Amino acid sequence: MKQDLDHYYKKGENAYILLEELFPIARSISGNGVRETLGRLKKNIPIDIHEVRTGYQAYDWTVPEEWNIKDAYVLNSDGEKIIDFKVNNLHVLYYSTPFNKIITLDELKAHTYSLPEQPELIPFVASYYKRQWGICMSQNQLDSLKEGNYKVVIDSTLHSGSLTYGEILIKGDSEEEIFFSTYTCHPSTANDNLSGVVVTNDIVEYLLKKESLRYSYRIIFIPETIGALVYMSKNLETLRNNVIAGYTVTCVGDSGNFSYLESKDGDKYVDKVSRHILKCVDADYKEYSFLKRGSDERQYSSHGADLPIGSIMRSKYHEYSEYHTSADNLNYVNEVGLGGSINVYQLCIEVYENNKVYESNIIGEAQLSSRNLYPDTFQQKQSLDVNKIVDFMAYANGINDLVDIANKIESPVWDLYPIIQTLLKFDLIKEKV
Amino acid sequence: MKQDLDHYYKKGENAYILLEELFPIARSISGNGVRETLGRLKKNIPIDIHEVRTGYQAYDWTVPEEWNIKDAYVLNSDGEKIIDFKVNNLHVLYYSTPFNKIITLDELKAHTYSLPEQPELIPFVASYYKRQWGICMSQNQLDSLKEGNYKVVIDSTLHSGSLTYGEILIKGDSEEEIFFSTYTCHPSTANDNLSGVVVTNDIVEYLLKKESLRYSYRIIFIPETIGALVYMSKNLETLRNNVIAGYTVTCVGDSGNFSYLESKDGDKYVDKVSRHILKCVDADYKEYSFLKRGSDERQYSSHGADLPIGSIMRSKYHEYSEYHTSADNLNYVNEVGLGGSINVYQLCIEVYENNKVYESNIIGEAQLSSRNLYPDTFQQKQSLDVNKIVDFMAYANGINDLVDIANKIESPVWDLYPIIQTLLKFDLIKEKV
Amino acid sequence: MKQDLDHYYKKGENAYILLEELFPIARSISGNGVRETLGRLKKNIPIDIHEVRTGYQAYDWTVPEEWNIKDAYVLNSDGEKIIDFKVNNLHVLYYSTPFNKIITLDELKAHTYSLPEQPELIPFVASYYKRQWGICMSQNQLDSLKEGNYKVVIDSTLHSGSLTYGEILIKGDSEEEIFFSTYTCHPSTANDNLSGVVVTNDIVEYLLKKESLRYSYRIIFIPETIGALVYMSKNLETLRNNVIAGYTVTCVGDSGNFSYLESKDGDKYVDKVSRHILKCVDADYKEYSFLKRGSDERQYSSHGADLPIGSIMRSKYHEYSEYHTSADNLNYVNEVGLGGSINVYQLCIEVYENNKVYESNIIGEAQLSSRNLYPDTFQQKQSLDVNKIVDFMAYANGINDLVDIANKIESPVWDLYPIIQTLLKFDLIKEKV
Repeated sequence: MKQDLDHYYKKGENAYILLEELFPIARSISGNGVRETLGRLKKNIPIDIHEVRTGYQAYDWTVPEEWNIKDAYVLNSDGEKIIDFKVNNLHVLYYSTPFNKIITLDELKAHTYSLPEQPELIPFVASYYKRQWGICMSQNQLDSLKEGNYKVVIDSTLHSGSLTYGEILIKGDSEEEIFFSTYTCHPSTANDNLSGVVVTNDIVEYLLKKESLRYSYRIIFIPETIGALVYMSKNLETLRNNVIAGYTVTCVGDSGNFSYLESKDGDKYVDKVSRHILKCVDADYKEYSFLKRGSDERQYSSHGADLPIGSIMRSKYHEYSEYHTSADNLNYVNEVGLGGSINVYQLCIEVYENNKVYESNIIGEAQLSSRNLYPDTFQQKQSLDVNKIVDFMAYANGINDLVDIANKIESPVWDLYPIIQTLLKFDLIKEKV
Repeated sequence: MKQDLDHYYKKGENAYILLEELFPIARSISGNGVRETLGRLKKNIPIDIHEVRTGYQAYDWTVPEEWNIKDAYVLNSDGEKIIDFKVNNLHVLYYSTPFNKIITLDELKAHTYSLPEQPELIPFVASYYKRQWGICMSQNQLDSLKEGNYKVVIDSTLHSGSLTYGEILIKGDSEEEIFFSTYTCHPSTANDNLSGVVVTNDIVEYLLKKESLRYSYRIIFIPETIGALVYMSKNLETLRNNVIAGYTVTCVGDSGNFSYLESKDGDKYVDKVSRHILKCVDADYKEYSFLKRGSDERQYSSHGADLPIGSIMRSKYHEYSEYHTSADNLNYVNEVGLGGSINVYQLCIEVYENNKVYESNIIGEAQLSSRNLYPDTFQQKQSLDVNKIVDFMAYANGINDLVDIANKIESPVWDLYPIIQTLLKFDLIKEKV
Repeated sequence: MKQDLDHYYKKGENAYILLEELFPIARSISGNGVRETLGRLKKNIPIDIHEVRTGYQAYDWTVPEEWNIKDAYVLNSDGEKIIDFKVNNLHVLYYSTPFNKIITLDELKAHTYSLPEQPELIPFVASYYKRQWGICMSQNQLDSLKEGNYKVVIDSTLHSGSLTYGEILIKGDSEEEIFFSTYTCHPSTANDNLSGVVVTNDIVEYLLKKESLRYSYRIIFIPETIGALVYMSKNLETLRNNVIAGYTVTCVGDSGNFSYLESKDGDKYVDKVSRHILKCVDADYKEYSFLKRGSDERQYSSHGADLPIGSIMRSKYHEYSEYHTSADNLNYVNEVGLGGSINVYQLCIEVYENNKVYESNIIGEAQLSSRNLYPDTFQQKQSLDVNKIVDFMAYANGINDLVDIANKIESPVWDLYPIIQTLLKFDLIKEKV
C-alpha cells in the first residue's frame, strides 16, 4: 500500500486528539460513559441525544437495565490493591453485578477472565444479558496470585434507566440517504471502537462544511447490537425507503491495510463504490465475505431489514491479535491510520455526490486538437489524459454511471471529474437526467 | 479424501457379498445372464421384470436377437484346452455367433482380441450389432501360441427372443420423481458395472425402509444403451413430466476419489445437490464435463429427452486402467468403496427429501442467549453452531433453498438439519410453501 | 503457435508481391499517393473510387486541404544531400507545409523528429491538423550534424482538393453485411499498414471467386480516422442497419502470434467467431481489451455508431518496436505472415457463411453402426469422429448455433462441416430456419 503519509497524518491529527480525550471513559451499552462521550462529541457536531427506557422491546430484544460503575478493585490479604479499575477499566467484567466480599483464591479464579495465549494482556469481556460478577486480569497476574483471601469490590449499579444514543440528519437535495453507523459501547479500547467514533465525528464535520449536498446523510452513534435494533425499530420504514448505501464505521484507527466487508448480497451500490475507491487507494486491500461480519450490519442486513450496508476498515475485528484486549490502546492506533480512513470515507462521499450518468453528444471521436486537448504531433505515445478523455466518451452511453466507466477504463474516478467539466464546457457530453 | 472407513466398510459389506455372488454370471444385453441376475435381486427388492421382444423399435434402434452362451473353448493340436470360458467368461467375444471348427493359427489370430499395452489382461469385448465370432485372450497368451491347428468351439445361440429389464417405482407424497438407472449387461467385470447394480440394490433397500417419502423414486436395471432406449420409448412422457433429478449409477465400487459427471447443461438441480454433497464428503472429488459421458445419460440427455441426469462415481469408466479388462475383478472393488458410494447417494437422497425454503420470522438477529443458544460471555471466539444459526437466519429469505444457504454459508447441509428443527421450535423461522 | 508454414507461404505470395509494389508510394490521408495505390488495386478488384472535397464536415471533423509532395531534401553547407525523401520517404513530416530556406543547425533541430531510444531508425511522423514543416531522421544522423547552415527544401503543396477512398460492395443473398475496413494513409511502412491493404485485397479476391454468398460484404480502403468518419457520415444508416460483424484490417504482415482486439462490448458476434477461429489456429494468440484500440474501430464503435467491430492482427500497433519507424519495412513482413492472416480471415468468412442452427431429428443417440459410421467392436477407445458426431447431435437443440456447439464440444468448427453434411444426408438433423 502506497499511502500519502503526510496527507493522512494531517487528516488524522484532530481525530487522534479527540480519541485520546475519550479513551479513559468507561463506556458500556448504557450508562453515563456513553452520555459523557456523546456530550463531548456534541461540542463538535450537532448530535441529537435520545434516551430509550429499560424494558423497551426492539424486535426480539429488550433494552436491559442501565449499568453504571464507580470503582472496582481487588485487595490481597495484605491489603494491597492488586487490581484497580482506575488504572485500567478493562479489569471489570462489563455489566458486572455489584460485589463486595472477601473470598478465597479459588472463588476469585472462578470469576476471573484472562487470556492464556496472550498472558500479558487483560481481556475486554462483558456479560450484558446474564447477571454475574467478574474481574479481568492478565494470565501472568492470575498465575502469580498466592493462596489466601481476597477482598473484591465492584461498585456498580444496575437499575431501571435508559439506553443512550446520538443521531444527526444532514439534509441534502434528495430524500435519499447515505447512512453511517458507529458504536459507542466499548470502554478503553482504541481501534475497536473509539476509532470509529472519532472518524465518524470527522465525517460529520466534513459534511457540515459543504455548501450543498446531493444526498441526505444520516449518522448515528449507538451501542452495538441493542442500539442498532432500537434504532431500527424506531426508524425502519424511513431507513428502508431512503438509505441507498451505508456503512458500519469500526476499526479504522491503525495503519494496516484497508479491508472491506461486503454487504449481504455483495453486489449493492455501496459495494461498487467502496470497492472502486479501495482498489484505487490500496491495491492490496483485503475483501471479507459477509460471513465474516461481526458488527451492526448483522442487524441492518437481517432478513426483513435488508439495508445495503458495508464496512470499510483497517485491521478488522477478530483479525488482529490486540482485538478486545488491553493492547488495543493508544499505541495501537495513530494519526496516519485515522487520517487514511477519513480520506477513504471522504472519497466515497465524493463518489456518491458526483456519480452521474453522461452521454456523448457526438458520433465518432471528438476533434481534440481543435480544442487544444491533443498533442500536435502523431508520435508513438499519446498522453494519458487524452486516452482517458477518449475512453470516457466511448463509454458515456447514457447508461453507464461514472463508476462503471472508471472501472471499465481502469481509472480512479477522481481523474474523471476534471475531464467531465471540460467535456461539458465544450458541449461534447450531456448529463443524463 | 478423509473417509470414515469403518462406517463405509459396514455400509458396503452386504453390497460386496451380493457382488461376489453375481460376479460369475455371463450377462450380456439380452439372455439368461440378465434374467438370473434380476432374479437374484428380486429376493431383496420388489423388482418388476419386463421382457421386450426382438425387433422392437426404440427410436433409431432395434432390439436385437437374444444371445445365450453355454460354453466356449479353444483346443490346441495336442487337444489341450488353452482357452476356457468356464475359467473366465471374458474369453468370448460377447454376442459372438456360434462357431465350431478346426482352424489355423492365422485364422484364430484374425478373430482374437487382446491388449498389446496390457499384455497380461484379457479384454472385455462385444459386437452387438455386427455378426461375427471372436475369442479374447491376453497378449502374452496370444504371443505364446505355436503354429498349428486349433479347434474353436463357441456354443452360443442367437434367436428371436427378448431383452430383459427390471423396474421399481416407490411412491412418495409427490408425483415428482428421483430417477436411478444402472446397467446389467456386463459379465464378470466388477466396478463396471456390478458395483452399480449392487449399490442401486442398496439404495432401493434404503428407500424401502423409510416410513414416508417426499418424492417418488424410479429405479431401473437395464442393459446399457438399447435398454435405456427401450425404457425411454415406453416411458418418456412420464419421465419428462416427473423426473426432477436422476443418476446413472456406475463404477461405484473401488475406493478411489469420487467423481461427478455433470448433466448436459451442468446447472440442473441434480448438479447443485450432487456437487454440494461431494464437496462436503470429498474435497478432492473430480468433476467431468458432459463431454466425458459414456453411459446411459447419453440417451437420457439426448435432445428431445433432455432428462436432468448426472453420475456420481468413484473411478470413472475409461479413466482407470483396469476398465473393460479381466483386472476389473473382485480385487479391484471393496467394501469401503461400495459403502462410501452408498453413503453419498444416501446423503443426496436426504437432500432431496429435506431441501426446502425457509424464511426468518423476525427482523434483526434472534436473541439466542434468552433461549440458551448462546455462550454467556462475550469472548473473542464464538462457537461454530451460533455462527451457523445466525448465518442461516440471515439467508433464510423465503427464496434461497437449503442447499443455496449451505453453499453460501459454507456448511454441509446436514449441519443445518438440527438447526432448522430448533429454529422452527422457537418459531424463529417458517417453512415457505 | 503451430503454423502450417508452407500453406501460409503460398497463401501470402501474391500479397507480398503486391506489397512490394505499393511500398515506395508516399501515401498520406489525401493526395496522389492514395490515388495511385487505389488505382493499382483496381487492376485486381472492382473498387469504386470516391473523392470528398476539402471542407466536407464529418461529424466533429473537417476534411483538410489536400497534400501532395514531389521532393524533400536537406543540403549541408558543402552542398551534400544529407537527407533525401527519394531514398526514404519517411524523411519528411507528413502534411509538412512547403519550405525552401537556408537555416542554422539549431533551426533545423527545432523542426526535426528523431527517436532517441532507437537511434538508428527514422520515425514516421505526421501533423495533419497543425500547419508546420518538419524533417525526420535517425538520432544518430542528427547527432552527427555539424554546426553550420543547411538548406532545407520541402516541395509540398497544400490546397483545396479532395480526400480519396475506395469501396466495394459484394452482394450476397442477405442484405446483412460483413464489413472490412483498412487504411491507405501510411507511406512506406509495411506492417502498418500496407499489410492490411494487401490482405484486404486478397479477401476481396477470395469473396469474388465464390459462386454464391450468404451475406453481403462491404470493403473499404480509407485514410485512417478522417476517412472512417467521412465514410460513416455518408453511410451510417446503412451500416447500422446491415453490418452484423466487421473488422479493421491492420498489422497483418509479420509472422508473430495472432492477436485480437475485441469489440467495445467484447461479447458481439464478431468476438465469438473471431475468438473461436483464433484459438483453434493459434492457442497462444493474444487478447487485447478495447481500451487498447488505436485504429478506425475508435470511430465505428463510438457512442451513436456502435458498430460491432473487432480486429484480428499479428503484432499489434504500439506493441512492436518497429512500429511507425523505418524498420517497419519489407524485411519486417513476409509471405508466411500475410498468408496466415489471409487464412484466418478466410476461416472467419467460412464461419459467417456456414454458421447456422441445427436440430436433431431423433430422440436418443443415432445408431451409427447401421450407417457405417461406427467402429464395429466395442473397444476401450472410440474414434474421434464418432465422438464429435454424437456430441454435435447432443447439442443440436435448435438454439445453439454451430460456433456455440463447436465451443461446447471443444472442436474446430471446420471439423463439423463434413459431419453436418453426413447427418443431413441421413436425415438425422435438420437446419433450423
